[in-house]
Amino acid sequence: MSVSTTVILRLEMDKNAATFGEIVNAISQASGDVVAIDVISSGKHMTTRDITVNVSDSSYQHVVDSVKSLSHVRLINVSDSIFLAHLGGKISVEPKARIKNRSDLSKVYTPGVARVCKAIEENPKKAFSLTIKRNTVAVVTDGTAVLGLGNIGPLAAIPVMEGKAMLFKQLAGVDAFPICLDTQDTEQLIQAIKQLAPIFGGINLEDISAPRCFEIEKRLSAELDIPVFHDDQHGTAVVVLAGLINALKVVGKSITDIKIVVNGIGSAGSACCKMLLAAGVQHLVAVDRYGALNPQESYDNPMWQWLSEQQQLHYVAGGLLEAIDNADVFIGVSQPGVLTVEHIEKMATEAIVFAMANPEPEIEPDIAEPLVRVIATGRSDYPNQINNVLCFPGIFRGALDCRAATINEEMKLAAAVAIASVVTDDERSEQYIIPSIFNESVVDKVRDAVIKAAIETKVARRIPLEYRLDRSEQKKG
Amino acid sequence: MSVSTTVILRLEMDKNAATFGEIVNAISQASGDVVAIDVISSGKHMTTRDITVNVSDSSYQHVVDSVKSLSHVRLINVSDSIFLAHLGGKISVEPKARIKNRSDLSKVYTPGVARVCKAIEENPKKAFSLTIKRNTVAVVTDGTAVLGLGNIGPLAAIPVMEGKAMLFKQLAGVDAFPICLDTQDTEQLIQAIKQLAPIFGGINLEDISAPRCFEIEKRLSAELDIPVFHDDQHGTAVVVLAGLINALKVVGKSITDIKIVVNGIGSAGSACCKMLLAAGVQHLVAVDRYGALNPQESYDNPMWQWLSEQQQLHYVAGGLLEAIDNADVFIGVSQPGVLTVEHIEKMATEAIVFAMANPEPEIEPDIAEPLVRVIATGRSDYPNQINNVLCFPGIFRGALDCRAATINEEMKLAAAVAIASVVTDDERSEQYIIPSIFNESVVDKVRDAVIKAAIETKVARRIPLEYRLDRSEQKKG
Repeated sequence: MSVSTTVILRLEMDKNAATFGEIVNAISQASGDVVAIDVISSGKHMTTRDITVNVSDSSYQHVVDSVKSLSHVRLINVSDSIFLAHLGGKISVEPKARIKNRSDLSKVYTPGVARVCKAIEENPKKAFSLTIKRNTVAVVTDGTAVLGLGNIGPLAAIPVMEGKAMLFKQLAGVDAFPICLDTQDTEQLIQAIKQLAPIFGGINLEDISAPRCFEIEKRLSAELDIPVFHDDQHGTAVVVLAGLINALKVVGKSITDIKIVVNGIGSAGSACCKMLLAAGVQHLVAVDRYGALNPQESYDNPMWQWLSEQQQLHYVAGGLLEAIDNADVFIGVSQPGVLTVEHIEKMATEAIVFAMANPEPEIEPDIAEPLVRVIATGRSDYPNQINNVLCFPGIFRGALDCRAATINEEMKLAAAVAIASVVTDDERSEQYIIPSIFNESVVDKVRDAVIKAAIETKVARRIPLEYRLDRSEQKKG
Repeated sequence: MSVSTTVILRLEMDKNAATFGEIVNAISQASGDVVAIDVISSGKHMTTRDITVNVSDSSYQHVVDSVKSLSHVRLINVSDSIFLAHLGGKISVEPKARIKNRSDLSKVYTPGVARVCKAIEENPKKAFSLTIKRNTVAVVTDGTAVLGLGNIGPLAAIPVMEGKAMLFKQLAGVDAFPICLDTQDTEQLIQAIKQLAPIFGGINLEDISAPRCFEIEKRLSAELDIPVFHDDQHGTAVVVLAGLINALKVVGKSITDIKIVVNGIGSAGSACCKMLLAAGVQHLVAVDRYGALNPQESYDNPMWQWLSEQQQLHYVAGGLLEAIDNADVFIGVSQPGVLTVEHIEKMATEAIVFAMANPEPEIEPDIAEPLVRVIATGRSDYPNQINNVLCFPGIFRGALDCRAATINEEMKLAAAVAIASVVTDDERSEQYIIPSIFNESVVDKVRDAVIKAAIETKVARRIPLEYRLDRSEQKKG
């Protein structure tokens, strides 16, 4: 946000008891400047006004509090440019055609629609061609792990899910609808999502806390015949791998030779580890606040247990300081400030650091930059932003277009390679290992790679026209 | 459908084994005319073609069957103008604004969205102003009683729900999204709908079979703080009452004096009875296939039990023939053909008959018309069509605009009176007791009446600007 911003305070005031003098006074004493006063409604005793005020970030809260403290005045609402962008919500549901007359109505609704219903009843596959199922994804959350805000519940999570739906449509033409479920019980979530699945062609799980998210995604993937994709896990992992592929080219190291430390083994960190192993990493240390995952121990968290059983996972006694010794790559999805200069100085030469804690990275990029060869963060105000927006639109576009029954590891790997490929050999540099989220070729390249991988791994239930060879040959495989 | 229609047959054929000669032959022998053949895709062995064929209604199925019977040819799909109107579904989800740059993104998505989420977490009411909840309704079905098709399941029900969503938006500007639930267990349905409620401002229950629908609606209304409205029940009842109000003016009878027979006590019939009693009917006979409801008996069906306890409900031994003796009004929501000339001849003078069985009414209007004063049906090809489309858009528009916590009897009665009022005293006649669904003043009049009734009955949680008197006075009530 800018240093100075404009806010609109909607007040209800008792005409006889409250005066504008005291209101303006209270605001200016809190160092806000009253720009305008508009009447919203006015009755015999009460009146509602919008007071437009210029405030600095520092005075914002003071102004609000001082107005709240006034007697005979009720602060109904505080708006600013961000709130105004959310008024009434950010998406709408639109008919694809206008019903102009009785003939139109009898086609899209009764009585004509009955024949379409019967056709789907006879052959359920037809739902993919005769309904919105073909192009519609549910963005599902329970509000347990929203952004950095934690467990704020389903209602407060809606604005994030709406924003995601906007991105789905604008970037990939996918119709996405937010589903914010009022339960945090793992079994109830699984049941509810299974029950509402019929109209959707895919399920994007969002902001569901770990380790519950692992069980929920695993069960749904097994029990539903449409793709289920927990973006916080796999979206992050795919974009991290894309960035790493290009970063390794910059430093001239091979993914099979490097030692990688992943710090923070939550939903994103676990998925990053899994993706890195699938990509060929042979030496991985996974560190959480209790130290490095240890093959000798057993864990309740199913992902931790799975990771601890992988032979490429190496254990180092102690904490991050011991784990990072001679590491080529640090991948942080943990806490602000946990990575220090001392840590980095212990890394191998030409170190690569992905510090993706939000909103503040594991180390300030300005501090890390002179000490490493490549630094990437989750932030938009530094080069090399690792952002899920590079992955989910294209990966669902591809999965929907080939009616993939699932989004498997091969499809995720293909998506990562495709994202990396957007940065050409000539363009690639320490400052540019990952394309911008506004780069329009990203979605097409990811879609193409995902469809090809889906066809090769036999999870595509429809071959898009441009990918059709002779069917009989494909059957031969 | 017209006598002759054009269908498109998509065929996959084995190039080496199948010939076009036999295909064209088979089609013409089934008296279809091949208009065009288009190549969709062609491989080494297999090719996919669209065959456009003119067929009469009678030959339609023969053509399809004869092509199906061919060897080396696979009928992939059959399209006609109705199916083409459904390709890819009939609604879409659209962003209200385009994300043009980083500044836009940081407002509608991270990091700016976090402040909006926090505001809703602090004050959940703000979800009504800062999210789509304000204007969004779920059209929920389990597919157990879809149109006249019966229990076809959630997937096959989608086209109807999409059509309903189109009407919601076009007629009333309501964003409606179809939810087709993959369970038919009453408790699971109640739980699932409660869990997905947070993002919705209202729930339109649709095509859920009786008597389950009564329990489901009752429980949801009690346990949710947004309106829950089973359109098959109350939408029908509201429009029936609207038509009856005008029909009684035509014949010059008072609703408190007349004897009414309601035939068919399913979800719609039960709701009609309840609404008629709320409107002042003193003499009601409710007939189902087992005869008239009997105050002496007790019923498992909760609505039957409730009705049997009402003192305005009169019992007549026997069947419809006995029940209809000297009745002023017959309201049929039952089976085609159950009402005969013999029945009508036993009715009082200036008889009113609403024969609303779908697709074929209880009696052919042409047969009934000379015997009665007013006849109405559910069909669009006769005057006086009783159609739910007259009710649900306006009643939800009103409920959403005043954030009604529920849609109560007073609001439904007000909606019925409002629909009736669209037909002026000069216009009203035997042929015109109910407005056309394309009459644009219906939604505005229903909305206005519903909001006023909601305010009067204290279920409005927001007073739309144009309805605001002095707040303090309203609090006095």
